[in-house]
Amino acid sequence: MSKNKELLWQSRFSEPFDRGALLFSSSVHVDKKLYREDIRGSVAHVTMLAEEGIVSDRDAAQIIAGLGEIEVELSSGSLVPEWEDEDIHTVIENRLKEKIGAVAGKLHSGRSRNDQVATDTRLYMRRQIEELQGAISGLLKVLVEKAETHRDTIIFGYTHLQRAQPISAGHYYLAYFNMFLRDRDRLGDLMKRVNISPLGAAAFAGSTLPLNVKRSAELLGFDDLFANSIDAVSDRDTVIEFISACSVIMMHLSRFAEDLILWSSYEFGYLEISDAFATGSSIMPQKKNADIAELVRGKTGRVYGNLMAMLTIMKGLPLSYNRDMQEDKQPLFDSAETTLGSVEIFARLLEHTRLKEEKLAKLTNEDLSLATEIAEYLVRKQVPFRDAHRITGKIVTWSIASGVTLPNIPVEQFREFSEAIDEDIYPALKADASVNSKKSHGSCSFNSVAKQIVEARKKL
Amino acid sequence: MSKNKELLWQSRFSEPFDRGALLFSSSVHVDKKLYREDIRGSVAHVTMLAEEGIVSDRDAAQIIAGLGEIEVELSSGSLVPEWEDEDIHTVIENRLKEKIGAVAGKLHSGRSRNDQVATDTRLYMRRQIEELQGAISGLLKVLVEKAETHRDTIIFGYTHLQRAQPISAGHYYLAYFNMFLRDRDRLGDLMKRVNISPLGAAAFAGSTLPLNVKRSAELLGFDDLFANSIDAVSDRDTVIEFISACSVIMMHLSRFAEDLILWSSYEFGYLEISDAFATGSSIMPQKKNADIAELVRGKTGRVYGNLMAMLTIMKGLPLSYNRDMQEDKQPLFDSAETTLGSVEIFARLLEHTRLKEEKLAKLTNEDLSLATEIAEYLVRKQVPFRDAHRITGKIVTWSIASGVTLPNIPVEQFREFSEAIDEDIYPALKADASVNSKKSHGSCSFNSVAKQIVEARKKL
Amino acid sequence: MSKNKELLWQSRFSEPFDRGALLFSSSVHVDKKLYREDIRGSVAHVTMLAEEGIVSDRDAAQIIAGLGEIEVELSSGSLVPEWEDEDIHTVIENRLKEKIGAVAGKLHSGRSRNDQVATDTRLYMRRQIEELQGAISGLLKVLVEKAETHRDTIIFGYTHLQRAQPISAGHYYLAYFNMFLRDRDRLGDLMKRVNISPLGAAAFAGSTLPLNVKRSAELLGFDDLFANSIDAVSDRDTVIEFISACSVIMMHLSRFAEDLILWSSYEFGYLEISDAFATGSSIMPQKKNADIAELVRGKTGRVYGNLMAMLTIMKGLPLSYNRDMQEDKQPLFDSAETTLGSVEIFARLLEHTRLKEEKLAKLTNEDLSLATEIAEYLVRKQVPFRDAHRITGKIVTWSIASGVTLPNIPVEQFREFSEAIDEDIYPALKADASVNSKKSHGSCSFNSVAKQIVEARKKL
Amino acid sequence: MSKNKELLWQSRFSEPFDRGALLFSSSVHVDKKLYREDIRGSVAHVTMLAEEGIVSDRDAAQIIAGLGEIEVELSSGSLVPEWEDEDIHTVIENRLKEKIGAVAGKLHSGRSRNDQVATDTRLYMRRQIEELQGAISGLLKVLVEKAETHRDTIIFGYTHLQRAQPISAGHYYLAYFNMFLRDRDRLGDLMKRVNISPLGAAAFAGSTLPLNVKRSAELLGFDDLFANSIDAVSDRDTVIEFISACSVIMMHLSRFAEDLILWSSYEFGYLEISDAFATGSSIMPQKKNADIAELVRGKTGRVYGNLMAMLTIMKGLPLSYNRDMQEDKQPLFDSAETTLGSVEIFARLLEHTRLKEEKLAKLTNEDLSLATEIAEYLVRKQVPFRDAHRITGKIVTWSIASGVTLPNIPVEQFREFSEAIDEDIYPALKADASVNSKKSHGSCSFNSVAKQIVEARKKL
Repeated sequence: MSKNKELLWQSRFSEPFDRGALLFSSSVHVDKKLYREDIRGSVAHVTMLAEEGIVSDRDAAQIIAGLGEIEVELSSGSLVPEWEDEDIHTVIENRLKEKIGAVAGKLHSGRSRNDQVATDTRLYMRRQIEELQGAISGLLKVLVEKAETHRDTIIFGYTHLQRAQPISAGHYYLAYFNMFLRDRDRLGDLMKRVNISPLGAAAFAGSTLPLNVKRSAELLGFDDLFANSIDAVSDRDTVIEFISACSVIMMHLSRFAEDLILWSSYEFGYLEISDAFATGSSIMPQKKNADIAELVRGKTGRVYGNLMAMLTIMKGLPLSYNRDMQEDKQPLFDSAETTLGSVEIFARLLEHTRLKEEKLAKLTNEDLSLATEIAEYLVRKQVPFRDAHRITGKIVTWSIASGVTLPNIPVEQFREFSEAIDEDIYPALKADASVNSKKSHGSCSFNSVAKQIVEARKKL
Repeated sequence: MSKNKELLWQSRFSEPFDRGALLFSSSVHVDKKLYREDIRGSVAHVTMLAEEGIVSDRDAAQIIAGLGEIEVELSSGSLVPEWEDEDIHTVIENRLKEKIGAVAGKLHSGRSRNDQVATDTRLYMRRQIEELQGAISGLLKVLVEKAETHRDTIIFGYTHLQRAQPISAGHYYLAYFNMFLRDRDRLGDLMKRVNISPLGAAAFAGSTLPLNVKRSAELLGFDDLFANSIDAVSDRDTVIEFISACSVIMMHLSRFAEDLILWSSYEFGYLEISDAFATGSSIMPQKKNADIAELVRGKTGRVYGNLMAMLTIMKGLPLSYNRDMQEDKQPLFDSAETTLGSVEIFARLLEHTRLKEEKLAKLTNEDLSLATEIAEYLVRKQVPFRDAHRITGKIVTWSIASGVTLPNIPVEQFREFSEAIDEDIYPALKADASVNSKKSHGSCSFNSVAKQIVEARKKL
Repeated sequence: MSKNKELLWQSRFSEPFDRGALLFSSSVHVDKKLYREDIRGSVAHVTMLAEEGIVSDRDAAQIIAGLGEIEVELSSGSLVPEWEDEDIHTVIENRLKEKIGAVAGKLHSGRSRNDQVATDTRLYMRRQIEELQGAISGLLKVLVEKAETHRDTIIFGYTHLQRAQPISAGHYYLAYFNMFLRDRDRLGDLMKRVNISPLGAAAFAGSTLPLNVKRSAELLGFDDLFANSIDAVSDRDTVIEFISACSVIMMHLSRFAEDLILWSSYEFGYLEISDAFATGSSIMPQKKNADIAELVRGKTGRVYGNLMAMLTIMKGLPLSYNRDMQEDKQPLFDSAETTLGSVEIFARLLEHTRLKEEKLAKLTNEDLSLATEIAEYLVRKQVPFRDAHRITGKIVTWSIASGVTLPNIPVEQFREFSEAIDEDIYPALKADASVNSKKSHGSCSFNSVAKQIVEARKKL
Repeated sequence: MSKNKELLWQSRFSEPFDRGALLFSSSVHVDKKLYREDIRGSVAHVTMLAEEGIVSDRDAAQIIAGLGEIEVELSSGSLVPEWEDEDIHTVIENRLKEKIGAVAGKLHSGRSRNDQVATDTRLYMRRQIEELQGAISGLLKVLVEKAETHRDTIIFGYTHLQRAQPISAGHYYLAYFNMFLRDRDRLGDLMKRVNISPLGAAAFAGSTLPLNVKRSAELLGFDDLFANSIDAVSDRDTVIEFISACSVIMMHLSRFAEDLILWSSYEFGYLEISDAFATGSSIMPQKKNADIAELVRGKTGRVYGNLMAMLTIMKGLPLSYNRDMQEDKQPLFDSAETTLGSVEIFARLLEHTRLKEEKLAKLTNEDLSLATEIAEYLVRKQVPFRDAHRITGKIVTWSIASGVTLPNIPVEQFREFSEAIDEDIYPALKADASVNSKKSHGSCSFNSVAKQIVEARKKL
């Protein structure tokens, strides 16, 4: 068994740290992902230290050069972090000492592991929020395009998974547009709380050195500064808020995925997924499965789980920093990557789907979902709504029993149910008439959809 | 067994709805809490209908008067909703029909249960957000007052539940101030997404009637209108976001509660909870328990659970409305009430706590947490940080072994550890010197706390 | 404002307990559900005390008589618990004192609130487990009956929601039979850990009185005794295990519910739910919705949430009892009742569903899901499996393009894809032949289903 | 960009699978952990196929030899799975084909990916359950040893984190013994449901080949066979039950961790963690942190999150297999490894802790927690319990105010509170007398602990 590497905090301890305990507590396999953020934060910190005269320009230059080399080594894979190094910060610090000797230690002036980690985490979240917003924007664009292409395609709107009323397919796509638009806004709101520098809070009490924390924040592109050094290092509410925003995105995707899975089933059969995004079966040759949609739906669980993990970790922890918080990285990283990957692949999947327009046209014009049109027709003829509903119910029952679809019921038959019905009912009993009969704002009519598309384009 | 009441949707069904199924599906015991919102929404809807000439002024007046009476009946308890009524909307509609006859049916023109419920829910959330923001503001005020009172009280700052460095108690309270400030801001961001009218979306496709949805939104004090009728009735992302915001608040409270429980333990013993907010034991007469803090910590689980419930409910549901969504009420209501109650009682509990200043003064001036001062002193004397840390570690070990507290170590003894130490170390080895030695922004020094208080006051 | 009632633990406190704090901490609105268990536990305790000579027979008789009256008062509603009473235990104790005076206090000899609550909770769980096992047995019975009725009905088996292979409907029902059988077994395993008496553990350290805890356990029908008094009052792992078992049941129900919702959709259209268990729409007269199944699926979230609540509550609590644990009641009660209600209504719903056999017969004999038969046929003719799969894939593509269903492809056409195909392929291209071709244990063939039914009947 | 590898199911598809989609759906980075189980399962399957004459002995021998080589290649790292291979099963199958050509395909006879994966997962869980039971047994052993060593050490028992009554430290350790004993039992119960072979269920409908599923189950050491082929491949309830059992273990550990953290704080100061298991601070040289305990407490969140992930994944999925289920691996593996690692390190940590006996002896004999002794003393003198409680409350108040500890209150002073008190109270006012005064079964007395240890030893 090899000797332990030197750990930063062991000066007064009489026994070396147990290797099993070190292995258990090492986080380098997870937090190595932060090496770029860590080096960027260190460069900003030492730049500020030099500007304030806390370290010499010469020392700062050496440190910055060393860090630059280490970044190259890490990205090229020539430096491989080992678990004995405990975390990525130690990896970098130990390597820096190898390169430039004792001067490396000056990088730690006025900084603690706590504010260092908090800074790295915020830089990471900022980048992930931006990437995720970008990916959502991509999805929104696909949705608007789908809405434009299918403004005049009529599909069934469902409630309780029962055909309810015919609607413009464009309207359907715009429903999801609005959901993902809120998701993007939500990330924007979160950014206000994330893009705040914690650098300079030190362990939690601040530093005795005259740090220019405004300057290091500026160098790192933060919008604002922490107000309180304890708060800066000991909260993780923004991590929770981030994973919560991811959870809502995944919830929305899981619903959309469900619809794609349903619609591409043999029974619904309205939607064709291109071969490039479907899978088959190793045993049943006729199968064509919407695996990507299923996986997105499944990965929802993963992100929900991460949210619950983070909430649990933070529950009941006394101030300020506790080692439990180290466990924030895995759920954060996994949520960011799972959600980003899911949004991106879903946008591409959606592009590779095709509504079967002819089939839809036929089906929607024969369906019982035109029944609402009868009720509305009756209301226009001054029949109280409740009575109209009752009459229509009887007509529906007759239609099912007789096998005569609603548009094909003769007027005499209609009049047996209500004298208020006349020849002028037939124009109403068409799917496009039904869709266009909607007059209210934000409705499923073709006009409304056209207006919605104009508004949606402004928000891309 | 009594006969079923008439249900709105049964016209075409040949068998009555099973009573067991009705009992299982009835939500009136939960959603009766929404009666005020429901009546308010109905009044706005019918007012708009009359203004647009869709119902006559006379009918509208009758409906509004009837609804006004029903509100009184419900709030006075003279009308008691029964589970057979399925939900509060049916309770009100059936009662209205009893009062004014068939004209009651006109209230349903251009409106569905779906947009009605969505409207009620948003009105409820809006009110709860406002109340919760108010309660948080109350807590923030107590925190600033505590910070002012205890700006000069020195307590221990902890990491890993080990005494780390002496800090101003004011700094501690302001750490929580910043957390709850973000919580209030988070609710404010959410409000932008909540205060949007869904009224007029009807079942999900919009209405054939020329509704003025802008007007009804205005009457209800909404800031904006839904853009898409499917989205308006079939998403619950704002409910999830609300419960998520509540979860973060509870997380913060659970940590604060933990601190109060610890500090009021015999072993810590820094904090006295007044008898009015503590409980005893029925079997151990000496006990004085921080039950309120424990309950708040425990109720965190309840709100987390509600978040998981809501996320689960929505996962994988196809568009648009599904009955599963009825289950959103219980977690929403419970989260709102639990969080509001917890914030309110916690603010009062906090007011009824007292830091034991004399005891703290004595303890903080004798403690090993002054060790960081030695390290910082050495750094000021040009000792590289890592060496300073190592030297201090040895001094700490000696202090523990010998029983001589740090401020009482003779200078000769100090010099055996490092020649860089001189008589001028003693002024640094006092808790207040330690606190005041912090120079950086947002630190725990008295000056910094004073500045923070000024900023905090602006945000109350 | 009325005066506070006397609380059991306030003797040494100088101020009365704050009314807001009392309201916040009162649990009587939740735990009143335990009154029967509480009285039963008290009767057993005092019976034992009398037998051991710790209280006199006379006192015990008085106490038991008083408790009996209180049970009648509570069940008849003549005694209504008030929140000022803090919890149901105090309600009963205070009422007992009113009835029989100071002798009531002797009931508390050698017992604390902690072991009292733990006893009540275990009695409650035991009863709920039994009821839930009974309800599951009812569901199992319906499933076996469905399996018998539909042993020879052929339905589609799905993977990825794509038709995969024709199977016996009986096989499908028996799949759920096996799931719920495991659920019942799981509850049985849990019972071994639940039916253990904690009575006599007192606050957590045991009692100075020579209690005969074996006797009180026996009187309460417990199978065994706690081993350690701290453990007896301070764990809630059995509550978690119970809610976890409920979560798995709800997971199974949510899947079954999904299938019912799908199958009763217009598009699948294989399943008819009787009117007594379906709902309509207040606005769309043609709708017939599977609301009960949707509600069951939605309530899954509720139980999952309760599980997360309980896990969160217990996380990181120091030994022994902490007030946080009071919050176990609501998730426990809600999980028990929600799960029991869901299992019961689901069994009845299932009884009120009908498979449309004629339609199924027609569909399954025309479907591409017979493709696996071709592949298996080719394997029987010595074609390597991978090649067979590839050939069949080509046949499927041809069938879709040409519109000729598999059983109607002429043999010459078949032979263009593979010379191994001959006239003897046609008998294989029938749904029942496909089902019956399965030879392996536990398969979907009619024979296998018949055998499974025999085994299933033994387990009812 | 390299060409896609051949995927097993693509025969009838006209376009290759999108590389982004393949990357998203590839699970090889996760499921490669199952390679041993996968090979073991394949060997058993092909052995059975040969025995039944379904494949020739020669082919079987070739396949088994090839698989053996592949296992060596994978464990030595000479074969590195690539993500393009989709999953570990494809990695192995493709490699086998490279080695032995088309005969490799025969391995797939009568087996599908679905039953293959289900088999691998069950083999994995079985091994993990055994390892976890072993690790728990190790922890139980440490606990019994601690209980023996500290049978006569008196510590404070806490409720509400307030000192309640002095107890034997052995009793404390045995409380945890009982919790972990139940955890081990729970895993044992689960094993009955896990150790069931699903091999032979094929895709979900069974196979047309005359498989001897009993034989392959026997070869794999399964205790029993699946009853229903759909159930065999499409449920994941045992995975949920496993993660739930892990969650309870982590809950127990989190509580134990909390106690260790508290006790090793400066303020409690009863417990010393050896240097080998404690960490220091890079900035505060005096710190000695219980990081391992904190990490275990934090990792609780991880396992809870996995449970929620699995529950979410399965919610509402239609039968039978859906691709969502692929997401079961990561939460399963992570829960198994996190829990196993936590139990193991915790047992070692515990061994490296030391109770400070002298300090405890001094503290427990001076403490207010002896107050219960006064109350019990009064009860022995025939004072009704409630009065005894009240009198003791007054004595406690006097003791706090005067600074005179309970054992040092003069008898005259005692008698001012109650005439029932006499000189014979002093022997009761000692910590060991208090502990030993407990007479009831399972109590904290030294005798009781001795008996408990005897019983505990039997269960090791």
